[in-house]
Amino acid sequence: MKVTVTINRRPEIADPEGTTVERALHDLGYTETSGVRMDRVVHLDVKGDDAVAVKALVEEMCRRLLANPVLEDFEVEVTS
Amino acid sequence: MKVTVTINRRPEIADPEGTTVERALHDLGYTETSGVRMDRVVHLDVKGDDAVAVKALVEEMCRRLLANPVLEDFEVEVTS
Repeated sequence: MKVTVTINRRPEIADPEGTTVERALHDLGYTETSGVRMDRVVHLDVKGDDAVAVKALVEEMCRRLLANPVLEDFEVEVTS
Repeated sequence: MKVTVTINRRPEIADPEGTTVERALHDLGYTETSGVRMDRVVHLDVKGDDAVAVKALVEEMCRRLLANPVLEDFEVEVTS
């Protein structure tokens, strides 16, 4: 099954990558930009027929490897 | 206006970050996973009232800074 995981920093946690990109945009003259935040998206194929079981398995992967549960939230969507 | 940019490697281009994550998942025992690919998503606020002009501006930012046009495709969506 195709699974999409969206991982984002919690809103109250600073996003240094976003801050760096924002500064670079300003340096290039794009001073009308603000609030830059970066998310990561992981696409993966997981063997299995049961969407609920696959979702639970990928949530476990997120907690163990894909996301940092201290800083990040994640959302798992089984798309097919 | 709120803008979301999704940046992904072109399908025909190898994704070393995805490959590394896939290997790590296999090492943890998640051998049912394959085809891992990573996207980046940039959220930003851009001053302006004209969604068409904002979209064009952010596409220019993508070409100049946010994306690597040799390896990556990007999609700009003005959400509000």
